[in-house]
Amino acid sequence: MTEDPFAKTRALFELPAGVIYLDGNSLGPMMTRARARVLREIDESWGRELIRAWNSAGWIDLPARVGDKIAKLIGAPAGSVIAADSTSINLYKALIAALRLAPTRKLILSDNGNFPTDLYIAEGVVATLDAGYRLKVVGPEDVEAAIDGEVAVLMLTQVDYRTGRLHDMARLTEKARALGIVTVWDLAHSAGAFPVDLTACGVDFAVGCGYKYLNGGPGAPAFIYARPDLQSQAAAALSGWMGHAAPFDFDLSYRPAPNIDRLRSGTPSVLSMACLDAALDAFDSVEMAQVRARSIELSEAFRARVEALCPQLTLASPRDPAARGSQISFRFANGYAAMQALIARGVIGDFRAPDIMRFGFTPLYVSLSDVLAAAEIIAEVMNRRAWDKPEFLSRNKVT
Amino acid sequence: MTEDPFAKTRALFELPAGVIYLDGNSLGPMMTRARARVLREIDESWGRELIRAWNSAGWIDLPARVGDKIAKLIGAPAGSVIAADSTSINLYKALIAALRLAPTRKLILSDNGNFPTDLYIAEGVVATLDAGYRLKVVGPEDVEAAIDGEVAVLMLTQVDYRTGRLHDMARLTEKARALGIVTVWDLAHSAGAFPVDLTACGVDFAVGCGYKYLNGGPGAPAFIYARPDLQSQAAAALSGWMGHAAPFDFDLSYRPAPNIDRLRSGTPSVLSMACLDAALDAFDSVEMAQVRARSIELSEAFRARVEALCPQLTLASPRDPAARGSQISFRFANGYAAMQALIARGVIGDFRAPDIMRFGFTPLYVSLSDVLAAAEIIAEVMNRRAWDKPEFLSRNKVT
Repeated sequence: MTEDPFAKTRALFELPAGVIYLDGNSLGPMMTRARARVLREIDESWGRELIRAWNSAGWIDLPARVGDKIAKLIGAPAGSVIAADSTSINLYKALIAALRLAPTRKLILSDNGNFPTDLYIAEGVVATLDAGYRLKVVGPEDVEAAIDGEVAVLMLTQVDYRTGRLHDMARLTEKARALGIVTVWDLAHSAGAFPVDLTACGVDFAVGCGYKYLNGGPGAPAFIYARPDLQSQAAAALSGWMGHAAPFDFDLSYRPAPNIDRLRSGTPSVLSMACLDAALDAFDSVEMAQVRARSIELSEAFRARVEALCPQLTLASPRDPAARGSQISFRFANGYAAMQALIARGVIGDFRAPDIMRFGFTPLYVSLSDVLAAAEIIAEVMNRRAWDKPEFLSRNKVT
Repeated sequence: MTEDPFAKTRALFELPAGVIYLDGNSLGPMMTRARARVLREIDESWGRELIRAWNSAGWIDLPARVGDKIAKLIGAPAGSVIAADSTSINLYKALIAALRLAPTRKLILSDNGNFPTDLYIAEGVVATLDAGYRLKVVGPEDVEAAIDGEVAVLMLTQVDYRTGRLHDMARLTEKARALGIVTVWDLAHSAGAFPVDLTACGVDFAVGCGYKYLNGGPGAPAFIYARPDLQSQAAAALSGWMGHAAPFDFDLSYRPAPNIDRLRSGTPSVLSMACLDAALDAFDSVEMAQVRARSIELSEAFRARVEALCPQLTLASPRDPAARGSQISFRFANGYAAMQALIARGVIGDFRAPDIMRFGFTPLYVSLSDVLAAAEIIAEVMNRRAWDKPEFLSRNKVT
C-alpha cells in the first residue's frame, strides 16, 4: 500500500490543538460526521418529521443497522448484533440467557481482571435468580484451570482494563465449549481495537461498548451479540416491547422476536445511537488487521521510548504485543498526580487505582509522531519533579 | 394573571410550519434550547474536554440533576428520582426491588389497560425469578376489587395510553398500602401532563418516560423514583457500576449506593440525557396546575367541536375531564386510514390498534386556536370521504 490509510481516518476527527489523546480506550473523540449526523437528526428528523421520523428517518431500525456495522468488526454475521442500552444492561441480558441454556448448572466463572461492572452485574444476576446460583472469581491466569464441568457460564472480558492483558478467546472458548459451558465475552476494549472473530471462536454471547474504540460519543449505546443458532432460544429477561415479535400490535402478552431483536428492550436512545452510527463509518476505509498492525507499531515505539527515558515507571502490560490489547500501562505509586501533570501538559491518558497510568493507542487518529512526542513529555514530567514529596502523595487518589 | 404563561413556553419550541401537533404524548417536539445544549455538549464538552468532561462538564451528575428536575413535576423530593435507561429497564428494576420488599407474597397485579411493555417486563420478571411468582392482569375497572392480601406488588400505569382513562392513584395506593402491598406506578403519560403527587399518595416506586410530555427527544432517558425511606433497602438487580457506592474505587464486589443512585446501572447516554436536561427547563415558568387547567380547556374545546362536527366518531376517552389524562381518543373503524389523511393535512395525532384515533394536548406549545383548527380539519377529512369504501378499509392496519 502506498498511501497511509490512517491519514484519511485522522482527518475525520476533531481533536483539540495541543492535545495528544491517548485515552480513546475510555472515550473516543468527536468526529465531524458524528456531530453533523446528530444535528441532522435533531433538525430534520425530530424537528420536521416529529413522530413520523420513527419510520421516515429509519429510527426504528437503527439498533439493527448499527449492530450490523459493529458485527463486521467483531467477526459476526449480519443480524447477530443489536446496539442497545449499556454494556451493564446487555451483560445482564446475556447472562440470564446463557444460564437458561445450561439449566443443570448454576455457576458463573469469571476473573478478577474483569471490569468491576461485569462482576457487579453477575452478582445481581446471582442474587435475582433462585438460590444456588453463584459467581466464582479467580485470577486471570487461573481461568483456564478453573473451567470444569461444574461451570454453567464462562464470563470474561477479553482485555484487562488496567494492564491490557489479553485473554486467548479461541482457546478458552474451545475448552469451555467442550465441557458444555456457555460463553459470554465482553469486548469493551476489543471492538474497534483489533480483529475479533466471534464466529471462528464459537462464542455464544458477547457484549461491548460503543464509546471507547468505536468513538460513538459519551455514553453511546452498547451492543450485544448472540450466536445465530441460539437466538431463537435466548431467554429475554428484560422483555421490553422493542423485543416483541410485533411491537406495534400492542399484544397483551410477550412474544419474543424470533431473532436478535428479542435482546432489545425499551425505546432506543436515538440521538446517541445516531451519533454512534455515523462514527462507525470511520472503519469503512481500514481493515481491522491494519488497525492492529499500526496499534502494535505505536504501542511498541511508545513503550520502548518511555522505558528508556523513565526508569521510575514499571511496565504493567504484557511485554509481548500479541498478549495485550491496544494499550500500555505503567505502575507508579504517584500515578494519579503524575497523570494530572501529564494532562496539564496535553498528554491525556488516565489513571486506574491503585497505581496504574494507562495509555490507549488508536491508530484512526493517533500517529507515530504523537506517541513519540507523548513519551518525551512523560519523561519531562517524570524527571523534573520529586514525586515522593508529600504534596504529590496526598493527591494520589481518585476524586 | 394578566399574561398568558403559555405564550412564553410556546416560543421555546421549533414546530414546523403548517403542522398542528397533537402527538406530544408520543414524542414531544424539539426545543431551541435542547438543540443548543446538545451542540454545546458535542463541541465544548466532548470535542474540547474529551474524557475530562465527565467531571468538568458535570456529565457524571447529570442523571441526578435531571432526576431532581423531574422530581419537582411529580411531587417527589430532591434526591428521590434518577434519570436513566428506558422505562422498560427502570420498570424491571422497580419490580424486582418491590418484590424483594414483600418477600412472603409472589403476585404482581396489573391491568389490561397498561402499556404492553409494562406487562411484558412483568412477564420477564416472573420468568426470571424462582417458581411461584406470577402476574395477574384484570380489567382497569376491576383493579380496586382485585387488591387483596395475596398481592405483593401493584403495578399500574396511571393513564391508559389508548383512552386516556386515569386511575385514582391516591385511592388505589391507599388501599394497597393498607394491605401491605408495594406500589409501582408508571407515569409515562402523567409526568409533565398534569400534577402528580407521589409523596402525598405514598407511592413506593415510580417510573416514567422522558420523551413524551417532558420533550426530551427521541428515546430520551426515562426515570425512576424510590420513596426516600425505601432507597437504602431497594435491591438493585441491574447492579451496574454507576449504582455502586464508589464507582471509581473499582472494587471487585458490588456495594450499592446508600441512596437513589443504586438504581443507576451502566454509563448514562450523555447526549440524550443533556437534551432532556435542557428541555425540562421549559417547566420553570409554569405550574403543573396551570398546565392541567389549560389542558382541560383545550381538550374540552376539541372534544365538543369534534363531537358536534363528526357523528362518525365515538368518544373513547372519559367524558369527565377529571377522569382522563391529557388526551382525547375517538374510536373509528377506519381510524388508521383517517389518521393518515389527517397527518397529510398537517394534523398530527396517532393511531392505536384496533380503532383508536388519539390526540394529545400539550399546553406548552398547543393553543386553543390550534385545537379548534384541528377540529375543523378533522371534520373535513371525516365528512368528505366515503370511509366505508374497501380502499380505505384495506389500509386499516398498523404497518
